[in-house]
Formats: sequence, C-alpha cells, structure tokens
Amino acid sequence: MVKIEKMKRPIGIFDSGVGGLTVFKELTNLLPREDIIYLGDTARIPYGTRSPKTIIKYSLENTKFLLSQGIKVLVVACNTSSAVSLPHLQQENEIPILGVIEPGARRASEVTQNKKVGVIGTEATVKSRAYERAIQGIDPQIKVVGQHCPLFVPLAEEGWIDNQVTRLTVQSYLLPLREKMIDTLVLGCTHYPLLEGVIREIIGDGVCLVNSAKETAKEVKRILDEEDITSQGDSNGSYKFYVTDNAERFIKVGEIFLGRELKGVEEIEW
Amino acid sequence: MVKIEKMKRPIGIFDSGVGGLTVFKELTNLLPREDIIYLGDTARIPYGTRSPKTIIKYSLENTKFLLSQGIKVLVVACNTSSAVSLPHLQQENEIPILGVIEPGARRASEVTQNKKVGVIGTEATVKSRAYERAIQGIDPQIKVVGQHCPLFVPLAEEGWIDNQVTRLTVQSYLLPLREKMIDTLVLGCTHYPLLEGVIREIIGDGVCLVNSAKETAKEVKRILDEEDITSQGDSNGSYKFYVTDNAERFIKVGEIFLGRELKGVEEIEW
Repeated sequence: MVKIEKMKRPIGIFDSGVGGLTVFKELTNLLPREDIIYLGDTARIPYGTRSPKTIIKYSLENTKFLLSQGIKVLVVACNTSSAVSLPHLQQENEIPILGVIEPGARRASEVTQNKKVGVIGTEATVKSRAYERAIQGIDPQIKVVGQHCPLFVPLAEEGWIDNQVTRLTVQSYLLPLREKMIDTLVLGCTHYPLLEGVIREIIGDGVCLVNSAKETAKEVKRILDEEDITSQGDSNGSYKFYVTDNAERFIKVGEIFLGRELKGVEEIEW
Repeated sequence: MVKIEKMKRPIGIFDSGVGGLTVFKELTNLLPREDIIYLGDTARIPYGTRSPKTIIKYSLENTKFLLSQGIKVLVVACNTSSAVSLPHLQQENEIPILGVIEPGARRASEVTQNKKVGVIGTEATVKSRAYERAIQGIDPQIKVVGQHCPLFVPLAEEGWIDNQVTRLTVQSYLLPLREKMIDTLVLGCTHYPLLEGVIREIIGDGVCLVNSAKETAKEVKRILDEEDITSQGDSNGSYKFYVTDNAERFIKVGEIFLGRELKGVEEIEW
C-alpha cells in the first residue's frame, strides 16, 4: 500500500531557471506517465557565477520546497548546483536525490577512446572539478580538460543559436579544447544542448558530444525501476511549473527550450 | 552642529553588482574628499531580467542596509533599479535619494538637436519606459526609441570589450537605432560605458553618447552643495565595499571597471 502511494507521487526537478527544461523534456520522453513538478529559481538565476556557499543555500531552499510537495525522487537538473551542492542535499533525505554530473560522467568515460575528455560549463561547475572527480573515479587514466563558457547561456537565452556571433564565441572557447585532441566533450550546462549545432560544427565530427540531460533521464528511469516506484497510471503524466520570479519570461524562453507551448506556470514567493 | 555631523557622513551607493563602479569612479573624480560606502548585490545580480516586484523588493533591502550605515545621500547606481523602484525607495526617507535616469535624461534632452534620442539598457529598464517618461517630461517633442541589449553585460563582464564578437553584437542591436536617425544615445546601463569604443565605432561620430554615470556624479555634487553637506575634510575620502556574494569575482571584474586595484571589499549575508 505504501509503495502504491509512492508510485503515484510526482518526480521533482529544480534548476536555477529554464535550463533544466532540457532534462524535463528527456524525462517526459522516457517516462511519459510520470507527473512532474518543476521549480525554476528565476529570482536568483544564474547560479554559475555565485560562490559555493550561496549555491548550497539556494539549492537547499529549492530542495525543501519540492520535498514539501511530496515528490518521490528529486532531480537536480542544474549542473552548477549538482557540482557544488549535491552531497549537502543528499544528507538527511529519505528519497533518492540525483544530479546531472554522475550520469554525464559515466557516459563520457564509456565513450572516450583516447581517454581525453573535455568538459564545458559555468565558472562554478568548472572550478568545482566535479566532472573531473566523477570521471576519474570511474577511470583514473582519463584526462579531463575544463573550459567555462560564460557567454553560452546569454546567447541561448537570446535565441542566438545559429548566427555569426555564436559561431565566433564557440570558436573562441572551443578551439583550445580541440587543440588538446579531446575525443569526447561533455555539455556540462543545461543550456548548451541548444547550441549543439554550432558546437558540433566547430569541434568537428570526430568528437562525441555527451548531453547530460539524456543520461540523467535514463538514470531516473533506472532508479524508479529499481525501487519499484514507476507510475502505473495508464494516461500521460501532468506537469506543474513553479518559478520564483517573472513567469512571463520563463514561458517565453522555456518555449524555445521545449519547442512547444508551456502551460501550468505559477509564480511563488519565498 | 547637526549639519557638521552630516557633512562627515558617507555617500551610499548600491548596484546589483559591479556595474555601479562606473558611478563610483565618477564620484571619486568629482568629489575626492567624500567617504563612500558601496553595496553590490552580487548574490542576486542581474536585476535586468527580473520582474518589477522583485526589483523593488531587492532595492528596498539594499536601501535599508545603506541607511543603517548612516549615509547622507543615497545613489541608486543601477539603471534597472532606478527605472523601476526609485519612487518606492524615496517614500519615507529623510535623506536625498537619486537614481541615474533623471540625470541622463536631462543631459540627453539638452544635447539632442533633431529631437530623436535612443536609449539602450536591460530588458527591465527599456520595458519600464522610465527614460522616455523623464525625457518627455522635460521636452514632450523628443521622440525616444528604446532597445534592450542583453548580451552587453556578459560581454563586458567577460572583458570582451573590443573584439569581433562584440562588434557584431553591437551592430545587431544598434543598426536599427542608427536607421531611425537618432542624434543622441543614452548608455542606460552602468556596464555599457565599457563598450563605448565599439558603440562609438558602430553608431558613428554624428551621435552624441550620454553616460549617465558622469551626469549622476554632477547631480550628487549639486545636491551636496545645495544642502550644504559637502565634506570639509582636507584628506581624500575612504571607501568601503560590501557585496552579498563572491567578493573574489567582484574584485576581479571590478578592477576591469575601475582600471585599478580594488581594496576594502567585504562579504555580508542578508
């Protein structure tokens, strides 16, 4: 009876803003029957340039909110928050809490042939070396090169996903990685899959791109199966989006991310 | 006696982050004997994409903090906050509180010949139409054209103030303004003076650029003189900087803004 109750509960996701919708999208593809509650902390986005202390504080508040909604599993869909705060969030909680780093790191270590992996992300993610630790925890022989790309998020949010400004910016950040002969590149920020076309063009066909969003969705599916708490409903799941500020902008940018209409967005006050 | 006490008090400035240092710099040039307390709300930057409600809330909190420091005048050095929250801050306070919009608007209305003024700023500043109201309050004949330039702040913070990416971005935002035959352009965000070289190159020599930071410093001087509370000290003023997060990054980016070493930075917790 308790397990059946749990099956019906929603999956919780949070991100600093709209970026986590890339994870949301993969989840809805892979687990269409699950209810999902999404929290975007748009009043305090971006996390990527903040200090670890502040990122942890904000992430704990987001976690508390989602736990109060009765979720069965929590996905930290923000690379920065996953990189910096995950162990703090996992303390004292009884439901599974996972981030996007481990799934991305596992995939990268599986696909690299020459054992040279690039990781691109925010300043805080790259500085934390969380991907490096996770990848080398799997295979200490793999060399990891990090590069932060501060302009990628504003470019993606501006919708400039395929113009000359974006091309030159991607060149500026990625050519040094290409010179280091990486054969695998982790897109270590939820916004980056939007720039995948230009990234692919600049980095070349020989480099395998790892999208953490896809890998994380697979990991959520595995956890639900393992714990036997996958939804048994026969209709599609329902979705609820909470944001801490500016629902209008979340909807506008979110629709670029999802490629479809975004409904059920509600603004909350901390 | 009370007045002498007041003369000795510091000037307070706040901004959402480092941008207000452009105003700070102009103040120290014009009023070198004044003590200044600067607050950068780096835990919640940027303000430019947030809702008016949230901008007002954050600005009231910043104001409260600076008032508790015993300042004699408050400068809202953030265009977004000035545009959206100034009337709310001015309620119930006994010291002069001024923003950057009115001084910039006054200057623009003085220098335009053809009565066509462009205003560039954040999304929130442009949407608020605060410059338009202020300029047309002085001369209703002046036509004001707004354009928000979301990529300028990240470009300036990345230190990309004169490369091809910046040039193409400036072109993309400013060519439509140039076509409208403006003869005056207000740099309505404290970060934008850093890009002045490229902005000048794209918009052409025929357009007068208005830097609100300079005009605001003049206005502060005028207020201190008028209220007879200018510092009478015979040594240079001392400066104190408070930030709500990541002092390290504030110092790094702040030194680009000031062009010199930045000392006396302290992190506070709300």
